Amino acid sequence: IKFIADVSLSYVKNHEHGTDPKPKFTEKYFPQILDHFNYNSMGNGTFDQRYLITDEYWKRGYGPIFFYTGNEGDIWEFALNSGFITELAAQQRALVIFAEHRYYGKSLPFGEDSFNIPEVGLLTVEQALADYAIMITELKGQLGASACPVIVFGGSYGGMLSVYMRLRYPNIVAGALAASAPILSTAGMGEPKQFFQDVTSDFENYAPECGDAVRGAFQRLQDLARVEAFSLCQTPSSDKDTRQLNGFLRNAFTLMAMLDYPYSTHFMGNMPANPVKVACDTMLGGDDLLQALRDTAGIVYNSTGDLTCFDLYTLYVECADPTGCGLGFNSLAWDYQACTEIEMCFESNNVTDMFPVMPFTVKSREQYCSKRWGVIPRLGWLKTQFWGDALSTASNIIFSNGDLDPWANGGSLSSSLIAINISEGAHHLDLRGANDADPASVIKARKMESDTIAQWVKMERYG
Amino acid sequence: IKFIADVSLSYVKNHEHGTDPKPKFTEKYFPQILDHFNYNSMGNGTFDQRYLITDEYWKRGYGPIFFYTGNEGDIWEFALNSGFITELAAQQRALVIFAEHRYYGKSLPFGEDSFNIPEVGLLTVEQALADYAIMITELKGQLGASACPVIVFGGSYGGMLSVYMRLRYPNIVAGALAASAPILSTAGMGEPKQFFQDVTSDFENYAPECGDAVRGAFQRLQDLARVEAFSLCQTPSSDKDTRQLNGFLRNAFTLMAMLDYPYSTHFMGNMPANPVKVACDTMLGGDDLLQALRDTAGIVYNSTGDLTCFDLYTLYVECADPTGCGLGFNSLAWDYQACTEIEMCFESNNVTDMFPVMPFTVKSREQYCSKRWGVIPRLGWLKTQFWGDALSTASNIIFSNGDLDPWANGGSLSSSLIAINISEGAHHLDLRGANDADPASVIKARKMESDTIAQWVKMERYG
Repeated sequence: IKFIADVSLSYVKNHEHGTDPKPKFTEKYFPQILDHFNYNSMGNGTFDQRYLITDEYWKRGYGPIFFYTGNEGDIWEFALNSGFITELAAQQRALVIFAEHRYYGKSLPFGEDSFNIPEVGLLTVEQALADYAIMITELKGQLGASACPVIVFGGSYGGMLSVYMRLRYPNIVAGALAASAPILSTAGMGEPKQFFQDVTSDFENYAPECGDAVRGAFQRLQDLARVEAFSLCQTPSSDKDTRQLNGFLRNAFTLMAMLDYPYSTHFMGNMPANPVKVACDTMLGGDDLLQALRDTAGIVYNSTGDLTCFDLYTLYVECADPTGCGLGFNSLAWDYQACTEIEMCFESNNVTDMFPVMPFTVKSREQYCSKRWGVIPRLGWLKTQFWGDALSTASNIIFSNGDLDPWANGGSLSSSLIAINISEGAHHLDLRGANDADPASVIKARKMESDTIAQWVKMERYG
Repeated sequence: IKFIADVSLSYVKNHEHGTDPKPKFTEKYFPQILDHFNYNSMGNGTFDQRYLITDEYWKRGYGPIFFYTGNEGDIWEFALNSGFITELAAQQRALVIFAEHRYYGKSLPFGEDSFNIPEVGLLTVEQALADYAIMITELKGQLGASACPVIVFGGSYGGMLSVYMRLRYPNIVAGALAASAPILSTAGMGEPKQFFQDVTSDFENYAPECGDAVRGAFQRLQDLARVEAFSLCQTPSSDKDTRQLNGFLRNAFTLMAMLDYPYSTHFMGNMPANPVKVACDTMLGGDDLLQALRDTAGIVYNSTGDLTCFDLYTLYVECADPTGCGLGFNSLAWDYQACTEIEMCFESNNVTDMFPVMPFTVKSREQYCSKRWGVIPRLGWLKTQFWGDALSTASNIIFSNGDLDPWANGGSLSSSLIAINISEGAHHLDLRGANDADPASVIKARKMESDTIAQWVKMERYG
């Protein structure tokens, strides 16, 4: 879970292809309580939490509220890449709100000091959920919407938050659509090898020899002398540099697997249509495996062709999430969350996956987090706090997952809730707006989601 | 909700009458996380949380776990006055644990500094619930009890915590018995006048003229000159003293109504059998109303007859809970909770009740709390956080209430959960052990509770 850069935003807003139709959101700020769980901390005040709102589809005072529980990034990024929600709002005459997660985008509780210790300590899942509960309750009052059922939406970590909102605040939230939400793997209930195995499968399913080519390229890369062919701005000169290079490259494949949409997108950077296909064609198209690997990385890191060399340490930052944390403030915040509540000890081992051996154990996470943030992760906390797979008392949650998404196996669950599987679907494809290139599976999934949500709204209203 | 004193404890432990049969509890301490909701606070460590445990009834590794969610006091006090739980454990072969609430009894996170600012800030309902969730999870592992369903029990605020545990952690808790838990009134969903009206009713139901006598006595007391007859250690000389005297006296009636058990008890101090009857007989028995009022107060404050005068400011401390906070450390902790999450703006008005006019508004609470603890209460927080009366998705909770209990009207709710009403029952009478003087209603209630809990355990085990 990660973002390449914040800088792509202006591009996203103005670009025409692959971005969902732009709804007329108004950007606002909500005076939010800094610390919901301590009345005597430094957090005895408020901060400005950003949210986007549009009432252009709303049947005022009656239609439901569709509330996106923002995740690890600038809220515009999600609003502009979740067209399904506004399309659904138009059908069901809903008010739409996209709320920004504290410590991301412009919702920095302590401005530029937000990532100092101890200021960063108010960044927890529980605080974020309480933010949304308070914001929904107060906005309903202000907008004359007290009779309007609330449905929450989220993708990825935002989908986890949607699930948690329904578990934690069913008094406030009538139902949740959680797209590609890895609630199990992030609660320590997964297999460390699963993630990169699934990334590998995506490429091997396109062409078995694609995996071989990637393996072969990484193998040759072990000889540091060969690195010269790699267009790096600085020649690697240490084990650390080698690890950084490997992480940088693995990350490119991770992103292409997650974002393997059937049309070009500008979500988390620029991505061509069907990037896995493009990558494999690149890997298999040339004579020199190392040049092919470099060009494949370029699909992700040099989509504009402007870079003349790769600067390993600015294009990719290693962090407590082995799938990457992106860059900028958002990456700091996500790193902190990966160091505290959210467990992501995923490893590549070169046996069940095509990547170099890159261990990331509970112990190495602990060492890193202790040094970087002065915290010791608490294993099992998320499972205790948000139920793990013991969801028998939960209701009104749709878990959707895409077959192409390496996060999909992190969120499977019991049949007592609604699980929608989207064959040919990448990371929360269903949240995106309709597109001519959509596979039939996602069209069907959106129809099921739409019908289910309409039903929840009706139930909430008439019992 | 309150306790008169910690000092009665040694007495309770050794006394023979009116205390439930003493189970063989072992006193232990659990290394508990100081701050569950901030990884970078002063709370980055542990404290010793006390709990009592007995496995004398337990079918090891199989029988259920009965877990008392300790409330605002020394945990021994609850363990020794909740004999029903151990009686039920003997029937159902359960392991019994009584856990002490943080900041009460010996579970002081920062020792004698616990009530300094900001150390007191870690005293919240959420922290207490997380304590219990972590403790249950870890003890189950240590005791080879991972297959054992957990049922939580609690009376009064402890009953609120039991409800919240089932709402919040159904992954950990299979069901809850909440006895006399005022979940609505403490969430700001009650009527300010209800509480003292119900106290008054208890006395008037015994004898209508009893209420008149109390009213008359308070009326005469307004003339400060008459106070001499009152056996006070210091003569009141200010409005503050008068208010203190009124609060001191009103508090005696509150306690007798709450603890109107059919046999003498030593819970929250010493109480004769049927104290409301004793009080009314006293009020109506003499010629001088003021002497009668003094003697009635003496039932509560001078049960041993040792006091030669009443010291108003040591026998009763005014606080953010208008029904009293008791004395000692426990009273500090409860005052803080009443200043933050738990709303108890109950007033007497001398119209719907028999007491002097003693307003206690949202505003006066705010002023007091801001001055005393540097906090501003957040109205509606408990309702947002723990669902108020929107309990349609909740399950496996028994709400029991006694007709004689002024707290009873604070906890009524929807029919989707099990509500047991105990006519002739005072404050969580059902949690006490069997007694020859028990009314038929409580015997029947305990049978229902027992059957229901056995059913929950079975369901949890076999689905």
